[in-house]
Amino acid sequence: MRAELLIVGSELTSGEKLDTNGQWLCSRLAGLGLPVRFTTVLGDDLEDNIAAFRAAAGRSELVVSSGGLGPTQDDLTRDALAKAAGVGLVQDDEALGMIEALFARRNRPMPDRNRIQALIPEGASILPNPTGTAPGIWMKVDRARVACLPGVPRELKAMFDQELVPRLKAAGLAGRVVVGRTINLFGLGESEVEARAPDLTARGRVPEVGITASDGTISFRIRAEGADEAEALARIEPTAAIIYERFADLIVGEGTDDVAEGLVAALRSTGKTIAVAESCTGGLIAHRITRIDGVSPVFPGGVVSYANEAKSELLGVPDDLIAARGAVSPEVAEAMAEGVRRRLGADLGLAVTGVAGPTGGSPEKPVGLVYLGLADASGARSRRLELGPEQPRTVIQSRASKHAMNWARLALLGKLP
Amino acid sequence: MRAELLIVGSELTSGEKLDTNGQWLCSRLAGLGLPVRFTTVLGDDLEDNIAAFRAAAGRSELVVSSGGLGPTQDDLTRDALAKAAGVGLVQDDEALGMIEALFARRNRPMPDRNRIQALIPEGASILPNPTGTAPGIWMKVDRARVACLPGVPRELKAMFDQELVPRLKAAGLAGRVVVGRTINLFGLGESEVEARAPDLTARGRVPEVGITASDGTISFRIRAEGADEAEALARIEPTAAIIYERFADLIVGEGTDDVAEGLVAALRSTGKTIAVAESCTGGLIAHRITRIDGVSPVFPGGVVSYANEAKSELLGVPDDLIAARGAVSPEVAEAMAEGVRRRLGADLGLAVTGVAGPTGGSPEKPVGLVYLGLADASGARSRRLELGPEQPRTVIQSRASKHAMNWARLALLGKLP
Repeated sequence: MRAELLIVGSELTSGEKLDTNGQWLCSRLAGLGLPVRFTTVLGDDLEDNIAAFRAAAGRSELVVSSGGLGPTQDDLTRDALAKAAGVGLVQDDEALGMIEALFARRNRPMPDRNRIQALIPEGASILPNPTGTAPGIWMKVDRARVACLPGVPRELKAMFDQELVPRLKAAGLAGRVVVGRTINLFGLGESEVEARAPDLTARGRVPEVGITASDGTISFRIRAEGADEAEALARIEPTAAIIYERFADLIVGEGTDDVAEGLVAALRSTGKTIAVAESCTGGLIAHRITRIDGVSPVFPGGVVSYANEAKSELLGVPDDLIAARGAVSPEVAEAMAEGVRRRLGADLGLAVTGVAGPTGGSPEKPVGLVYLGLADASGARSRRLELGPEQPRTVIQSRASKHAMNWARLALLGKLP
Repeated sequence: MRAELLIVGSELTSGEKLDTNGQWLCSRLAGLGLPVRFTTVLGDDLEDNIAAFRAAAGRSELVVSSGGLGPTQDDLTRDALAKAAGVGLVQDDEALGMIEALFARRNRPMPDRNRIQALIPEGASILPNPTGTAPGIWMKVDRARVACLPGVPRELKAMFDQELVPRLKAAGLAGRVVVGRTINLFGLGESEVEARAPDLTARGRVPEVGITASDGTISFRIRAEGADEAEALARIEPTAAIIYERFADLIVGEGTDDVAEGLVAALRSTGKTIAVAESCTGGLIAHRITRIDGVSPVFPGGVVSYANEAKSELLGVPDDLIAARGAVSPEVAEAMAEGVRRRLGADLGLAVTGVAGPTGGSPEKPVGLVYLGLADASGARSRRLELGPEQPRTVIQSRASKHAMNWARLALLGKLP
């Protein structure tokens, strides 16, 4: 079964607006067992719209469009669909009655131009719009079913669920459901992860497994289909188990969970607390931890020790240590971690000091050089990262924060060598 | 001139991820006089990709693709483009050298599978990627120019501007330019701003002015076209001058500059320093300040005083004041601001304490109640914000951080009552 989308609007092709209907429809259709193969975004041009409807109806069993159903001159979907199907436009009295009733409910006279919204291609039927003036269209063109929905996301979503889904089921199009599960890991590069999982990502494997990378976090995306959600999830389970067995401690969480969520989960499961001392990450670790609700039992706080005086005044790092080793050094990272742990009475102290750039680098301490410090009751240790030199500042800050949190997470789980 | 886009990735057609490269490319190409007619989003399927490249190259003069250039098995762009053009793949030694050099700079061995990224269709040339492993491709197919860029947005944007734009100009494809200028302000609602600018936002005005709101920041977007960038910018200037005159101190910056950039500019222009004490914002203010390069002369650091002990231990807030007034109170906000100012020897101390939710609210102190504290040599003051109760935690944190930074900015500029 092939489904495809036509997303219509010149405000989209000009780049002024970001379309989100396409993603929503892709996700909803996939869940109905109707995966989308193509989405075409196009402007308010009649010839382009006719060609797009023709091409889509010629190669897919289901075509869903968004936009172009309003009352203005640049709303061309009715026209384009009729011309693509080789039929004329006719007035639908039910649609006209609905539009008139909507204006009556709002105590406003119906502008003449809204009558155009009651026109539909011959042979089509309408999809009622419970909240707006634009009715949708439901039609067979060649062997394809075509559904036209308005571009307003709230209207599109309500009509999809209330009007289109029952018609898809009645037409025997929507059957099986497709469900996805995402497992996120950190600490290996994308190609290293794939090298350890060629059996999982092989083309044609069932269930299908994809790998994506975002800001250093690698995600396995598993998708399976079934007669219902429970069946599809059950098909995913053995693959998820392989990933959990093979990547074990590298896994930070599922869904949208990233390293910070993994660290907080490890803190909660071990009953430990952590305090952070941040130089080059400038508060990003504290921010990522405190975005999560309910962390106060495990996170007393932190220090952003940007200036050397902050390192000595707030963390008790000796001035002569900074003078002898430099602020970006393993010794200072360890002293920061010890200092913040002691000052805040935490079980763990985690520190980051480095050169985030783009300025401030030197041949000995280039942009991207970062030292992490980790202190607990038994003492402190440090770790060196090289995250530059060509990466932008915000990437270096983000990666450094993730490496630091992941290191603390592994320490909590007893997984450090 | 017809341009079109191919946006490749099964994580997009499945609805798991929202594409933003398409909008960015549409906007940038429109600015080069190359409006996009079609954007096709498609999955990692070889036949679909070959067909999409063939169709695009057959009807458009410029085709830009995003994604599918990584080292894994589901990265099919190289293959698909070669098959669409009817040629084979060859190794590009320059590309291989670049990939090897990137791994060498990162002191990591190059996995064998990354060699595949140095393959390009016969007759193509590479688009160097300054920050990632995936080189782009630049090729003529029939009469169309085809540019393949990686899907990572940061890499795509850098390569578009640095590598593709010069080639488009050299090929005589880029013509009249459309230029935009964005002026950002904070402290008024979108409808209040619009009510003060009906002359600017009138339809048909030249240059065109739009208003958008994002996370409390209101942006005027002015667009004009010209034979070159200088001419287009000159057309924008008188409108920008009206906005600056009318909104004066509300303006925090241009382009991507937001409240943090406005605060740092005010610190630099006045030669003052600021230290921050954050409870409910949890490091977000420090993070937003330290995202900006070169702030160490104006920002010594801060404290994330999430637990009450952190407020007393690191900021010297008296325990009995917290017990008497509560951690979320004007008195504690002022004491936090005074404490961080003194401890870090800064000119200004800025503090935030509040209830970010979703839990922890009470009838007297509901979710969204936030107190700001601001201290300087003459003493401390506080301000009450009500940002909830129905907003999510991350929105309350973001708005509180912006209100705090904007308050400090206005204080530095001598604009507080």
